[in-house]
Amino acid sequence: MKLYIGNKNYSSWSMRSWVLLKAFGIAFDEIKLRLLLTPGSAFYKALETVTPAARVPVLVEDDGFAVWDTLAIAEYIAERHPEAAIWPREARARGRARSLCAEMHAGFNALRGRCPMNIEARLHEVGAQQLEADPALRRDLARIEELWTDALQASGGPWLFGTDFGAADAFFAPVAMRVRSYGLPLGPAAAAYVGRLEQHPAVAAWIADALTEQDFIPEDEPYRSKR
Amino acid sequence: MKLYIGNKNYSSWSMRSWVLLKAFGIAFDEIKLRLLLTPGSAFYKALETVTPAARVPVLVEDDGFAVWDTLAIAEYIAERHPEAAIWPREARARGRARSLCAEMHAGFNALRGRCPMNIEARLHEVGAQQLEADPALRRDLARIEELWTDALQASGGPWLFGTDFGAADAFFAPVAMRVRSYGLPLGPAAAAYVGRLEQHPAVAAWIADALTEQDFIPEDEPYRSKR
Repeated sequence: MKLYIGNKNYSSWSMRSWVLLKAFGIAFDEIKLRLLLTPGSAFYKALETVTPAARVPVLVEDDGFAVWDTLAIAEYIAERHPEAAIWPREARARGRARSLCAEMHAGFNALRGRCPMNIEARLHEVGAQQLEADPALRRDLARIEELWTDALQASGGPWLFGTDFGAADAFFAPVAMRVRSYGLPLGPAAAAYVGRLEQHPAVAAWIADALTEQDFIPEDEPYRSKR
Repeated sequence: MKLYIGNKNYSSWSMRSWVLLKAFGIAFDEIKLRLLLTPGSAFYKALETVTPAARVPVLVEDDGFAVWDTLAIAEYIAERHPEAAIWPREARARGRARSLCAEMHAGFNALRGRCPMNIEARLHEVGAQQLEADPALRRDLARIEELWTDALQASGGPWLFGTDFGAADAFFAPVAMRVRSYGLPLGPAAAAYVGRLEQHPAVAAWIADALTEQDFIPEDEPYRSKR
């Protein structure tokens, strides 16, 4: 099984599936493509050979069967590995975990647009400026805080749905990276959760790889002109 | 079970879950909220009482347990109704159906932004102008056509995954509404699929309701100044 991903420093979608597979010890070969999203780039040419969707991440079986998009990959892996609690075991907790992942999947456009993932960067001044400038970003951050604190309180933590790290935690790992890079302010329970995410072995491994990547892509850098 | 939705003329997300439940004969009470997305509106005040996510659709159990977001609702319903083939029975077809729904769920921003769902409107000139103006819209439409024709060819049709209407068809029903309203050009196989979608009883019932709604919301109308 191969997982095609983009740069670890920039590709928040790739991070979700990679962290999920690593966290559950599911073996795969990583194929990293440089995340240069200009028409006709090597990124698109390489992806064309495996998926019509032209997006990372994409999971490709040995015979070429491809599953794309983080939510579909999570469901596919959950079905293939019933022994792993990718989703919570209890039906309503499972429903709620999927609600949170799907909410992340289609929403939070201000957070995505104004605070793109950039693990190695420290852009705390930019973060403060963006929060000041955009009420939609403030609403996104308030909703993230509410969503995390509600789930942690209902489950007892330390992960969103209880004692085990699961798909929902993997889906929010890139948000923790944005909080870190842009210095976004959170209350104590949410900030502590960000700290736990950063230290989870699968997340820490992704961060370590991102920091050694040292590849500056201007198209992914709205705020920096160089490394 | 209650399903909270927005205006049938405008709310593409609501349409997905409503059509899915109707198509499978799953009983629910419909609660329609006027889709006025301004801070503090009656829409948000009503939603606050059932979900923290402030979005439609949301499925609410009799005891108040809420599942929101179309993908999470589809999975919740599929688990509750194993007798219904909400997703294809075969594992890889199921993986592919989820890929297509998730791709729709997070993508096609040009199509969403430039051709918002407006079932009663006929805006063919606008559609032609928007297609001319925006290469991203042309790419979105080309991908929709490819995605539909690939799935129909692989399954044999008449629905995306074979002989039975399923979640993937419900997810693309609002796209068919955009094609119709904006006169977006498609090849014969994709155009015929749009025709079948329009005539599916659940989709036809939604369209009929949308046409009798007669509620003009300026915030949802980038192109018309009145009905």
